Amino acid sequence: LEEECRWVEAQNSKGECGLVPEDYIQVSRFFVIRVCAYVGEEDDDGEWDEEWDDSRSTGGDGDTPVDEDGGATGHNLHSHRKRTLSKFPFSKTPNPELYLLAKLPPKGKDRLPIYVTDVGPVWLYPESPLDCVVADPKKGSKLYGLKSYIEYQVTPNTTSRPVNHRYKHFDWLYERLLEKFGSAVPIPSLPDKQVTGRFEEEFIKMRMERLQGWMCRMCRHPVISRSEVFQLFLTYNDEKEWKTGKRKAEKDECVGPLIFSTIDPEAPELDSVEVEQRCELFSKFTKSMDDGVKDLLNVGNIHWKRCTGPLPKEYQKIGKAFQNLSSVFNTSGYQGETTLTDALTAAGKTYEEIAQIVAEQPKKDLHFLMETNQEYKGLLGSFHDTVAGHKAAIDKVKEADKMMLAGKITTQDKVTMGKRTSIMSYSLQAEMNHFHSNRIYDYNRVMQHYLEEQIRFYETIADKLKLALSQFTTL
Amino acid sequence: LEEECRWVEAQNSKGECGLVPEDYIQVSRFFVIRVCAYVGEEDDDGEWDEEWDDSRSTGGDGDTPVDEDGGATGHNLHSHRKRTLSKFPFSKTPNPELYLLAKLPPKGKDRLPIYVTDVGPVWLYPESPLDCVVADPKKGSKLYGLKSYIEYQVTPNTTSRPVNHRYKHFDWLYERLLEKFGSAVPIPSLPDKQVTGRFEEEFIKMRMERLQGWMCRMCRHPVISRSEVFQLFLTYNDEKEWKTGKRKAEKDECVGPLIFSTIDPEAPELDSVEVEQRCELFSKFTKSMDDGVKDLLNVGNIHWKRCTGPLPKEYQKIGKAFQNLSSVFNTSGYQGETTLTDALTAAGKTYEEIAQIVAEQPKKDLHFLMETNQEYKGLLGSFHDTVAGHKAAIDKVKEADKMMLAGKITTQDKVTMGKRTSIMSYSLQAEMNHFHSNRIYDYNRVMQHYLEEQIRFYETIADKLKLALSQFTTL
Repeated sequence: LEEECRWVEAQNSKGECGLVPEDYIQVSRFFVIRVCAYVGEEDDDGEWDEEWDDSRSTGGDGDTPVDEDGGATGHNLHSHRKRTLSKFPFSKTPNPELYLLAKLPPKGKDRLPIYVTDVGPVWLYPESPLDCVVADPKKGSKLYGLKSYIEYQVTPNTTSRPVNHRYKHFDWLYERLLEKFGSAVPIPSLPDKQVTGRFEEEFIKMRMERLQGWMCRMCRHPVISRSEVFQLFLTYNDEKEWKTGKRKAEKDECVGPLIFSTIDPEAPELDSVEVEQRCELFSKFTKSMDDGVKDLLNVGNIHWKRCTGPLPKEYQKIGKAFQNLSSVFNTSGYQGETTLTDALTAAGKTYEEIAQIVAEQPKKDLHFLMETNQEYKGLLGSFHDTVAGHKAAIDKVKEADKMMLAGKITTQDKVTMGKRTSIMSYSLQAEMNHFHSNRIYDYNRVMQHYLEEQIRFYETIADKLKLALSQFTTL
Repeated sequence: LEEECRWVEAQNSKGECGLVPEDYIQVSRFFVIRVCAYVGEEDDDGEWDEEWDDSRSTGGDGDTPVDEDGGATGHNLHSHRKRTLSKFPFSKTPNPELYLLAKLPPKGKDRLPIYVTDVGPVWLYPESPLDCVVADPKKGSKLYGLKSYIEYQVTPNTTSRPVNHRYKHFDWLYERLLEKFGSAVPIPSLPDKQVTGRFEEEFIKMRMERLQGWMCRMCRHPVISRSEVFQLFLTYNDEKEWKTGKRKAEKDECVGPLIFSTIDPEAPELDSVEVEQRCELFSKFTKSMDDGVKDLLNVGNIHWKRCTGPLPKEYQKIGKAFQNLSSVFNTSGYQGETTLTDALTAAGKTYEEIAQIVAEQPKKDLHFLMETNQEYKGLLGSFHDTVAGHKAAIDKVKEADKMMLAGKITTQDKVTMGKRTSIMSYSLQAEMNHFHSNRIYDYNRVMQHYLEEQIRFYETIADKLKLALSQFTTL
């Protein structure tokens, strides 16, 4: 027997068959196992409980959250921990190459067209963009007050009718989106879970801000935003509709690499060399951008610490030193002293105010810059998996001739593989173009915001100093 | 024999006699010794050489000057080392109490009147204030180039005719002023001597600036400015006049506490309680101000280091991070990318410029604030000696009754002591009022300068950021 990958036929839960590499036999269990995986996991309100999402008291159990930045500046909230737990008995890494020779289900109505425009392949964008507001976090409780949680109001611009969701609902949505679209569309992680202090005001505000950012990004995605599960999350009418919708989404079979079977690029098939080149280009870009973003986050973190730590302390000391000197001058007994001492005291107080302004400033400008870059760091991280899936498919295609010679696939199979990698490439290009246009918008916006706030900062200080200066006698 | 201070009669070099406490017998040698002290010390050009002022080469001998601030920021130039060497075989601490019962020389023509105005006792101020410019440092040499030195041009506003002086001439002037007026008028130290690197441009500039500051302060003093020795220094016509004048000044006998014998307060005699109270008030004030000034210098030094060290490095890193991200974006291949990348690069360069501005700023604002406070620290230090002399005199007066009972002094002596301490008190008051009016002027000026430069700093940055902002696309 040769030491080569063998292809075997596998059957999914619906009894449908497809050719699968033997190496992935464990992964292919997915098709059989995933439905049973939820049996018995639903509790009385139709939801599984996450012990690490709900804690019985506000104070928590004494565990302190890991501060990855190593600082005590409060900016540790900027670190998003990687999610490591999974409910599913299989790796979440998409394996899009499985799709290359799989027997596909018949084409349904939910098709995802790709058009070629002057920027290249793009998804079909809705005429009016979807958006939503996450607001009004409220403490709720269940089990006669034994368990408490925070509920957020989510209001889409389409219905303007708010729906309530807990963090774990967002997490459920994330899992569904990852499962269904993750092979083609990088799904950014949700903001961190946190063990302690979940009910502290600052944490809730920060989480809400990040859930808003995450939802906003999902709303802006043409594939995600029109998906049934996303629409359910935003617009369910009552508990019954929500529960029914949830069960339906969980039973959705068109998940994982099968998403590519729903994509229709209205463009000529690409050859394998071009597919590979484009994939390499994107891979290189996301890697470089990831480095650049991490560098900026690093510098921003150091700057944040200086601006909230030693720098305002120094301005405060300068302010105190001026006021101190003013107090001494006041004891001189010399006539005509007060004009100077009043001005000197005012100047000292001005520097104390400047200390306050400096310390508060990062929350006003650097915060948004950091959040955006943090979001992009996550996004680029999920891009890595998407690109890796494409690379694996390309490697498979490269083996096509050998496999054909060995009689493992037919000529028709090879043609199918080429056609499907072309579809995958169009999907990746549409996704990259979506990413680029969003990136240009986001970085334009965040840089403008940063610079505007910086200008306001320097002008505010200059104005305060002008006022302080005006108190001194003209010589 | 009682263990009490004994008063003995001492004779000065002119053969004049006075009553002196035996404890000070060493000090009284001054009157006898000081003329001979210079015999043989003049070299061929009529000046003694200071080995530690002239070094043979520019590079120095490898000794590094002590950096009292412990930093490598260049701001160590702000530390003025205490002068410890003395050419005279007696302590320079003025002992004004020696004057209380001394037999005084006949009143000469150089009288120093004190008037009482609404601010209290003041010296007689000239109608047009004296001023001078120290400029144009030039390297000179002597002994056929074996010795080199720096010569400064000093131009008084009275003659507008420049005279040349080396550092050691300023030092000679300082010694003369200290000797003649030090008991009544605190003479601030000259800027530091420095062993190595004396010919480096920055050092020469800094020394010139400080010599200018010192000369300016001396010019502003009504007693100093009209003195013969000071006028000689500023207005001598040729070498011959300079040498003759120097010899005359060195032979001046009206030095030390005898200066009080030339002071004529046109005001009623103060009683000893009032004298003591005023002295206490001044002592307390100078002590508090000294603390305040040192505190400000300390804070300023720390701030200087931050502004020239880590802070600009951080702005530079922010600038680099923006430019780095811009370079990455440029590789996207996405059309319409350049508007963002150009703007991002410009923003990055702006932060690099800001880094430069931040690093240069202390030289523009903090420098002057530090120099002024450094000058005041020196001034307050010399005030300490002046006030201590007055305190010693007051203590002596307190013993008057006891001394009278012990038959050591006569009733007339006691009256004389009271009269003379009153003169000393007026002198101290005139000096304090001179100090206060200068202080109010100086601190008004330095604070205005500091705030003006700070405003310019913040406005410059705001303007640069506005320009950077304008390059981003309006969304």
